[in-house]
Amino acid sequence: MLRSNTCGELNINNVGQEVTLAGWVQKSRDLGGMTFIDMRDRYGITQLVFNMETDSSLCEKARKLGREFVITVTGKVAERSNKNPKMPTGEIEIIAEDFEILNESKTPPFTIEDNTDGGDELRMKYRYLDLRRNPVKQNLALRHKVSIETRKYLDSKQFFEIETPFLIKSTPEGARDFVVPSRMHAGQFYALPQSPQTFKQLLMVAGYDRYFQLVRCFRDEDLRADRQPEFTQIDCEMSFVIQEDILNTFESLAKHLFKTVKGIEIDEFPRISYDDAMKYYGSDKPDIRFGMKFIELNDVAQNKGFKVFDDAELVVGINAEDCGNYSRKQLDKLTDFVRKPQIGAKGLVYVKYNEDGTFKSSVDKFFDLDALKSWAEKFDSKPGDLMLILAGDTDKTRKALNELRLEMGNRLELRNTDVFKPLWVVDFPLLEWNEESQRYHAMHHPFTSPKAEDIELINADPGAVRANAYDMVINGVEIGGGSIRIHNKELQKRMFKLLGFTDEEAQSQFGFLMNAFEYGAPPHGGIALGFDRLVALFGGSDSIRDYIAFPKNNAGRDVMIDSPSGISDEQLDELGLKIVK
Amino acid sequence: MLRSNTCGELNINNVGQEVTLAGWVQKSRDLGGMTFIDMRDRYGITQLVFNMETDSSLCEKARKLGREFVITVTGKVAERSNKNPKMPTGEIEIIAEDFEILNESKTPPFTIEDNTDGGDELRMKYRYLDLRRNPVKQNLALRHKVSIETRKYLDSKQFFEIETPFLIKSTPEGARDFVVPSRMHAGQFYALPQSPQTFKQLLMVAGYDRYFQLVRCFRDEDLRADRQPEFTQIDCEMSFVIQEDILNTFESLAKHLFKTVKGIEIDEFPRISYDDAMKYYGSDKPDIRFGMKFIELNDVAQNKGFKVFDDAELVVGINAEDCGNYSRKQLDKLTDFVRKPQIGAKGLVYVKYNEDGTFKSSVDKFFDLDALKSWAEKFDSKPGDLMLILAGDTDKTRKALNELRLEMGNRLELRNTDVFKPLWVVDFPLLEWNEESQRYHAMHHPFTSPKAEDIELINADPGAVRANAYDMVINGVEIGGGSIRIHNKELQKRMFKLLGFTDEEAQSQFGFLMNAFEYGAPPHGGIALGFDRLVALFGGSDSIRDYIAFPKNNAGRDVMIDSPSGISDEQLDELGLKIVK
Repeated sequence: MLRSNTCGELNINNVGQEVTLAGWVQKSRDLGGMTFIDMRDRYGITQLVFNMETDSSLCEKARKLGREFVITVTGKVAERSNKNPKMPTGEIEIIAEDFEILNESKTPPFTIEDNTDGGDELRMKYRYLDLRRNPVKQNLALRHKVSIETRKYLDSKQFFEIETPFLIKSTPEGARDFVVPSRMHAGQFYALPQSPQTFKQLLMVAGYDRYFQLVRCFRDEDLRADRQPEFTQIDCEMSFVIQEDILNTFESLAKHLFKTVKGIEIDEFPRISYDDAMKYYGSDKPDIRFGMKFIELNDVAQNKGFKVFDDAELVVGINAEDCGNYSRKQLDKLTDFVRKPQIGAKGLVYVKYNEDGTFKSSVDKFFDLDALKSWAEKFDSKPGDLMLILAGDTDKTRKALNELRLEMGNRLELRNTDVFKPLWVVDFPLLEWNEESQRYHAMHHPFTSPKAEDIELINADPGAVRANAYDMVINGVEIGGGSIRIHNKELQKRMFKLLGFTDEEAQSQFGFLMNAFEYGAPPHGGIALGFDRLVALFGGSDSIRDYIAFPKNNAGRDVMIDSPSGISDEQLDELGLKIVK
Repeated sequence: MLRSNTCGELNINNVGQEVTLAGWVQKSRDLGGMTFIDMRDRYGITQLVFNMETDSSLCEKARKLGREFVITVTGKVAERSNKNPKMPTGEIEIIAEDFEILNESKTPPFTIEDNTDGGDELRMKYRYLDLRRNPVKQNLALRHKVSIETRKYLDSKQFFEIETPFLIKSTPEGARDFVVPSRMHAGQFYALPQSPQTFKQLLMVAGYDRYFQLVRCFRDEDLRADRQPEFTQIDCEMSFVIQEDILNTFESLAKHLFKTVKGIEIDEFPRISYDDAMKYYGSDKPDIRFGMKFIELNDVAQNKGFKVFDDAELVVGINAEDCGNYSRKQLDKLTDFVRKPQIGAKGLVYVKYNEDGTFKSSVDKFFDLDALKSWAEKFDSKPGDLMLILAGDTDKTRKALNELRLEMGNRLELRNTDVFKPLWVVDFPLLEWNEESQRYHAMHHPFTSPKAEDIELINADPGAVRANAYDMVINGVEIGGGSIRIHNKELQKRMFKLLGFTDEEAQSQFGFLMNAFEYGAPPHGGIALGFDRLVALFGGSDSIRDYIAFPKNNAGRDVMIDSPSGISDEQLDELGLKIVK
């Protein structure tokens, strides 16, 4: 090694030792008689001292070192007079005796600091410099830690990590595939997996009992802020299980990760049905770090002459504690918020519960003290609180109130990123109606099993059939989901039919799976956790991009390597392809 | 869980317990009064007993169970009268009290046995059934074990596993890329990585110091028996290292794997230069499980009137111990062997060292006793041995003798798959001349650094420049290779020039890397180990395909899922592509 120690490990116990360090020049301070250099590597920062009195030529040379120069330095560890208790190496410095420049550096286009002056674009282009910054380094260190602890845990539970292929087959179900033209079979294509779903099911048919894989997946979707064309899943499957076994196993995994990575003990995950999640939070991924559960008011608020309520399918609200003192302006802002097109409410009804037991509301004209008192009882509201009420079509109103609830959670600082509140959402519907295609789509995917007690509804009332499907939700983020699968060929056929597949389509796309089911498929189920999202959550961030070493931008481009890009005509010829624009 | 125990864990200590097992019917024997069923899961096989006397209807039902039916069975653990010491569960059996069929099975197209009657094609098509067989299951279990131990070890040495992108950029250097058409940027393409080479170097520039990744790589090559279009690498890179550090680090990793996975302690790896490997073994991946090092005979065998030797650039042979009794027929077979087109020798000279101290050779006409005695001395040959000699052009003769040496190793059973002899081959040439393109190609890759002491030769005698490059070779298999990289922009430019890149080509393909080198690139180097091959070696096999869950066939097809295959016109339209045949 070109060093005897790293820049993160020397302390007071090393004083007097002769050491060699290697790293980057973080910053340099010339104090006349002395020059101090902060030298950085992955492990930390150590202060170097060059003294004009002891070695003026070395000191002169050191003064010429620019930011991000790579050097090795040899010297003696000394106790600092001016200690820095914030740094692990803050009690010592290196009295430099010699150094060598291993590589020079141009001045970086932005500062390599925790708070850099570089914009998003620039940092993406020079990602290798952005990656030098401490916050990004910590993100990738966290990612490594979560991955290794995931593997250790699942290995200890007798899961095998089994690699499934990346060059697979395109299927029109689900999102759009990335495809890979075959040269040996010109005109034919592989597809990159959106998930290893069918392969993990085949591994269960093959008797592997417990499978997992940290695996890259690909979706050619129009990108949103928090989406990447390639992303990583913790993909898992188990045999001879019921839903309860999967929930317990992966709840334990999550607890293990919280404990080993964050040092946090987590209680048993609450479970809530999809119906209740929608009823009480207006979302299938409720953030339960705070209360403000929805209270439905139809029975007390309708038929009192207020047309907005009377015409509504649902009148529903939340109680914001201690917000009774909201000003007119604050309330107007909330009204503006719910009226934004992406929220979609027509208006907002508020009721202030005054300290004197009276009420002040936007609907005083229609409701008297007794009426409002009965609302307050429903809300379990106390003087000083603020009730916020929406009305309208059930689904839309719930969706809007969910947004308002989250907004209030933000305003009241109830969504602390250091607090983690996981839960399971269970009993998802098997199917959802798609207006555009005028048919049912699988809510989870076409391999999800219906609940045994609901199977008889499949033909009569498909929308009412519940599935053995579940989501793990933490702090309002869907970390993962899964289901108990269908393991019976006939039921799988029936599902494909329900989803609008012809027999031929089902056979050509999933024939291998249905054939496999003829040779003794065990009952099985699994889950897939979004690894990027899990790590981002652990890191206290919403954005997965900050937790990916080399992410793509919102247009799906890697601006650092300039990809995608053109390929040669020879390559196109070999693939039997022509570009038509 | 649908079971209380697995089929691999019950033993004499569990006698009397009431248990529920789940698994597959491996086989069934009807002995009239009793029916025995071997029930299988991933963990083992347990014998079930159904008794006509105690429960005739249950026994009748059990008799109808076909091979590979999936069942759960409840019963009591009992001591067997007829114990099977070869099975971990061989001391007990389950007296069945009830069972349930979870799924039926058609009769599999081949037997699910260690030695199956299924041919290659059939087993590939029904891979999910082939995967049920014990030898395949052991291969994947081994693969899991090697991967988890690799990660634990590298994690303990402060390596971060960092995921690099799969959708990258096509570069014409090296093998052919698989490309991925972009829909959002129609007419442009991503490429799948042949290795994360440039990304891991960028991670070193970014200061990550120690990186590894178990990562899928892709090469669109015409396939040979032991090649797959997608394969897995243990990809590693370190900063502030010299070659010695890399060799020590990954030698330790290999020793750790041998110890934890195979229970074998391995001595320090010998190191041999590329030149010596070629001189003494005729191969840069010598199998040193056995001797038979090459002995060159030019000085004692030439200029004695034997034209074949006199005209040869090299006369070289091996000594096969105790083979002096080879028959005429055996020797003819060896001659036929070396004359095969893929071996390419014109003929074989043999010299038998008789027990009485005389010699019998195919060149008695040209060489007398003294001459042959001088050969024997060179070979360190003793009475009873057989000397085998080839002559001709140096490279071709060495190559042919390498094949003959390996063949003799096989015949003499010196290539025991339970014995592991790793070594390092070092000091590879930087460049190799390519006849076809009439220019130098990088022997390793264009980022490999020349040895400092050879840099001055780069212009005068490029072929003589040695590289800081090394291969890990075990039992004649190249398990991996790597190099200390160039970290200087100017030297990298010079290399690209030497390799026939124009400045524009170098810039457009590797500009991001060369730009990165301007911002303080540390000295760095690394290695990539072929994970599939390493696991196959541990398993005692030459074929990587047996160690991949879902391999492709030699035509690059997955015959199970029938891929590659056609895609829809809509998909092609979206990608702006047309198929031209």
